[in-house]
Amino acid sequence: MAIQAAVFTELAKHGYGRLSIEAVARRAGVGKTAIYRRWSSKLQMVVEVVSAAAVKVMPVPDTGTLSGDIRELLDAGAQAMRHPLASQIVPDLLAEAARNPDIAETLENALRETQQGLSAVMVKNAVERGDLPADTDAELAFDMVFGPLYWRVAVTRRPASDDYLDSLAEGATAALIAAHGPAAPPGGQEAAG
Amino acid sequence: MAIQAAVFTELAKHGYGRLSIEAVARRAGVGKTAIYRRWSSKLQMVVEVVSAAAVKVMPVPDTGTLSGDIRELLDAGAQAMRHPLASQIVPDLLAEAARNPDIAETLENALRETQQGLSAVMVKNAVERGDLPADTDAELAFDMVFGPLYWRVAVTRRPASDDYLDSLAEGATAALIAAHGPAAPPGGQEAAG
Repeated sequence: MAIQAAVFTELAKHGYGRLSIEAVARRAGVGKTAIYRRWSSKLQMVVEVVSAAAVKVMPVPDTGTLSGDIRELLDAGAQAMRHPLASQIVPDLLAEAARNPDIAETLENALRETQQGLSAVMVKNAVERGDLPADTDAELAFDMVFGPLYWRVAVTRRPASDDYLDSLAEGATAALIAAHGPAAPPGGQEAAG
Repeated sequence: MAIQAAVFTELAKHGYGRLSIEAVARRAGVGKTAIYRRWSSKLQMVVEVVSAAAVKVMPVPDTGTLSGDIRELLDAGAQAMRHPLASQIVPDLLAEAARNPDIAETLENALRETQQGLSAVMVKNAVERGDLPADTDAELAFDMVFGPLYWRVAVTRRPASDDYLDSLAEGATAALIAAHGPAAPPGGQEAAG
């Protein structure tokens, strides 16, 4: 088993607090030194493995319309939430973070970078199409698209049907436009949408 | 110290997993039997105390406009997130819920009831004013108002300034209207908004 897979299996079984580098090494069939060559601590190992997986399951959509991009991001998000990463490992790390400032900072940075990577491209494309003004707040935009889904599925654990995701995408598109005002026509060019 | 306060103190210190009814009783200066008279288990005690506090810190707004109600709900929400309840205890319970179906079910029911209590009244008032159609999905509405704030403050731990809350309220108001379509004029009366 690859080290990454071993980290996930051990995290799902024992949680962050009780996870040991020894057990990960044993499950992966490598020595502890092989792990310490890549990561300096258990925390660094877990956060890097988890962040890399989060980026992989959340591809940046590029459908040609803002509402299409939002709908696709929500679809990817709903899928990502079915991964043990979201339902088990992130809650574990958040609970640890409440008591350990090192974990909090590392986890926050990883979540922010993932979020910024996704929302920056989506907003940049929308600005280029004239769907959103150039000064759009990409963080607020991502919060409004992804937050409702996270609250629904990961926190209050209700299902997100296709109909629900359709309505949410429609709502979030309107929210982004309303929160940022209409796009100003760039260089005399007429703004679309 | 009241039993409720003792529960919060012990939860914040030790987390749900290591919390004991003995320690709560000792801190509250009562016998264990006084606790078992009110609650049949540690789980029931924690969820009831936490739910009651959540309802108390989240009053139902009634400002006379949908956007005003949303802005006030966001303000109360931002305040509630500064309470140890949101930053420490809920993450703990969510982490435990990932491994224990009993905790998951009890916690989900408590969160849903709290959310439904708040959103049902806000949506009912908006429908009566003609701001939203009668078939508005109160759950979707609450997800779109509260989800972005929870994701931002409780999960990725970024600050929510007054400007941020203003923009989010504007966005969420537009989202609710867009996701549900315009209000149909009830009984020939003209719809506002």
